[in-house]
Amino acid sequence: MQIEVLRLGHRLPRDERISTHVALVARAFGASAITYSGQHDSGLELSVKRICESWGGEFTISYDKSALAVMKQRKRDGFTIVHLTMYGLALPDVLPDIMPQDKLLVVVGSEQVPREIYELADFNVSVTGQPHSEVAALAITLDRLMQGKEFGLDLKGKLSIIPSAKGKNVRER
Amino acid sequence: MQIEVLRLGHRLPRDERISTHVALVARAFGASAITYSGQHDSGLELSVKRICESWGGEFTISYDKSALAVMKQRKRDGFTIVHLTMYGLALPDVLPDIMPQDKLLVVVGSEQVPREIYELADFNVSVTGQPHSEVAALAITLDRLMQGKEFGLDLKGKLSIIPSAKGKNVRER
Repeated sequence: MQIEVLRLGHRLPRDERISTHVALVARAFGASAITYSGQHDSGLELSVKRICESWGGEFTISYDKSALAVMKQRKRDGFTIVHLTMYGLALPDVLPDIMPQDKLLVVVGSEQVPREIYELADFNVSVTGQPHSEVAALAITLDRLMQGKEFGLDLKGKLSIIPSAKGKNVRER
Repeated sequence: MQIEVLRLGHRLPRDERISTHVALVARAFGASAITYSGQHDSGLELSVKRICESWGGEFTISYDKSALAVMKQRKRDGFTIVHLTMYGLALPDVLPDIMPQDKLLVVVGSEQVPREIYELADFNVSVTGQPHSEVAALAITLDRLMQGKEFGLDLKGKLSIIPSAKGKNVRER
């Protein structure tokens, strides 16, 4: 399964850290790319590229000012669009319909998501139906799509962690 | 199982939104309380209280300037301390030892976590060993502890969502 993420409506400085978390979760949980719309932010791109340089992965980040254009293009490329929103259908209920898809674009919103996004999405999906965090919703969704295999991913970075009960053990190769 | 969360080293304005997301994930994923250390932030407390007023739940937020004091007190109260850190042991490996515990304090860090936190924790636990997000790490950990039951929680709020394939359907009671 190929998974890409689309982050809607990035705003500066408000979303700097949340969008960085969204991108790093996408990378660590098995997505291959993130595109973001809203305001262009070379700092966000640099942060993500630096993490990839040190910690590995083929993950890419790119900007497109039109989220709708990205969604329409990905539909033409054969992607199924999963839009995460607290108003959507419960993830466990729709997961059986999403799992057989080959290519997924997972869309995570910001404050106000335009109506057209809901219409263009193949699935509007909620993680609990409570207000919480697009970072958490993305993590839980990718965890389910990956069936927990994000715990075994080897991103072949220059740096990697050797799990430790008390300390900090970083391997450099 | 009773679950509380401790958020370390809250900094203003840098952590405003991330700490809010941490608190809302704690609430939505079945924790009963969050304590935060670092800088006092009445805006953070107000945001979380407003969500609880509208969306329900017995969830509480409180501030303590000493994270170590909170951890020591919770240990005396019979809590097992699970500190989330990318350097720790993999969650799936330690989950069987954590699940039988009655009372858990899940600790989520900020930039630099002092040595003593690692020492005081009963478990230092990582969610993938990759740099990503304390919001995501908390969500995945609570999801595993709750065994996915966060999807069925009824927080009995004035507002709740009726899941919907395309629209926004909010019930007011």
